[in-house]
Amino acid sequence: MRLRNKPGAPAKIANYPQYVVDTPEKWQGRWKERFGNNNPIHIEVGTGKGRFVTEMAKLHPEINYIGIELQMSVVVVALDKLIAEDLPNLQLLHVNGGALTQYFAKGEVSQVYLNFSDPWPKTKHEKRRLMYHDFLVGYEEILIPQGEIHFKTDNQGLFEYSLHSFSKYGMLIEKVWLNLHESDFEGNVMTEYEEKFSNRGQRIYRVVASFPKK
Amino acid sequence: MRLRNKPGAPAKIANYPQYVVDTPEKWQGRWKERFGNNNPIHIEVGTGKGRFVTEMAKLHPEINYIGIELQMSVVVVALDKLIAEDLPNLQLLHVNGGALTQYFAKGEVSQVYLNFSDPWPKTKHEKRRLMYHDFLVGYEEILIPQGEIHFKTDNQGLFEYSLHSFSKYGMLIEKVWLNLHESDFEGNVMTEYEEKFSNRGQRIYRVVASFPKK
Ligand SMILES: C[S@@+](CC[C@H](N)C(=O)[O-])C[C@H]1O[C@@H](n2cnc3c(N)ncnc32)[C@H](O)[C@@H]1O
Ligand SMILES: C[S@@+](CC[C@H](N)C(=O)[O-])C[C@H]1O[C@@H](n2cnc3c(N)ncnc32)[C@H](O)[C@@H]1O
Repeated sequence: MRLRNKPGAPAKIANYPQYVVDTPEKWQGRWKERFGNNNPIHIEVGTGKGRFVTEMAKLHPEINYIGIELQMSVVVVALDKLIAEDLPNLQLLHVNGGALTQYFAKGEVSQVYLNFSDPWPKTKHEKRRLMYHDFLVGYEEILIPQGEIHFKTDNQGLFEYSLHSFSKYGMLIEKVWLNLHESDFEGNVMTEYEEKFSNRGQRIYRVVASFPKK
Repeated sequence: MRLRNKPGAPAKIANYPQYVVDTPEKWQGRWKERFGNNNPIHIEVGTGKGRFVTEMAKLHPEINYIGIELQMSVVVVALDKLIAEDLPNLQLLHVNGGALTQYFAKGEVSQVYLNFSDPWPKTKHEKRRLMYHDFLVGYEEILIPQGEIHFKTDNQGLFEYSLHSFSKYGMLIEKVWLNLHESDFEGNVMTEYEEKFSNRGQRIYRVVASFPKK
């Protein structure tokens, strides 16, 4: 996402601490308190402009969503959607998805979504991919036992890599969709990237993988 | 493969016991003897008309190949190729791939190929798919430790199923190709079905999966 740096962005984010959590490490182990209920927490890492997580939060009021995004320029776009919808079950974190154990306690999260993650196709950048081993360590730690990752992408190489990486980590490949939009999958919520790439005729791949029992 | 029953087939097969092994259970644990060397043994289950295994045997004289096929009408077609080529490192078995432990000793086989296996798309026929749990038990038993299955197909549903089935069995997904013919995979040997389906514009999927260490 190459958006120009928005000059007003830091101020705007600071103005909405009820939506973009300002010191998320303070809430580690206490997210139920913050949401004011015991509903399961689903996070999306690399939320981008936030359409997916906003739509999901509207459709599933019984779930609490947290959208995690590194780039301020898109956090602000997601924030605009959240301001417009005023959803009590959605929060945004402007943090690095590689440091999740700072923000969540063990087993505090019920599900992880990865949508159209940056592919980093060069082997030398493997460590930046959100399904690289070190990220999986973090997801596993904050997830409930046998917690799931739901990942979709148009990127063939990243999808091939992810199947291997999940498997190598000892995760179970629960289900694979090699052409999501032509499948019987129901209730798909499109992301911004998904719409763009499927309009160009790209296939969308999806996988659900779960961590081992231990 | 719906070939009409060939009247001369049983006699023909009986005439070439040097190629189509007549009592394969006798060779269990003694295939090295039969091939007259210590080369690794690779088997293909569901060989069909035999192009793949014949080409592989020509390309890799340092490997012994065994093509396994249930249907007599196609075993005969594979036999014709073998007669024409007279390859010392290729044998055919007219047996059921679900009974491999009768024909091979533990660890006697180094690799299993599955090419364009029958998809059996109905859930009630899952047990007939060559990557169903019970078949995997058989492959694992006859394979060397961490032995691999190399599977390719044009069938999206069967490929999705296989990734799950391998993973559920505890196998490692070593590598996935979601578009084999557009990939950097070298030395691909086409099967009869592969040629037919790729000529129709179908994508070819491939996966290498290995059994766990134990
Ligand atoms: C290709 S975009 C996809 C955005 C959105 N999920 C969609 O499908 O439209 C990937 C997003 O992931 C974000 N991202 C990449 N690495 C990240 C990390 N380590 N932590 C948080 N966000 C990250 C990028 O800033 C970018 O906004
Ligand atoms: C779709 S054809 C593919 C043939 C060949 N591999 C190719 O790619 O051209 C599948 C073949 O597997 C054989 N087959 C199916 N189940 C089998 C089993 N349990 N044991 C041995 N062969 C089997 C069928 O008879 C058929 O010839």
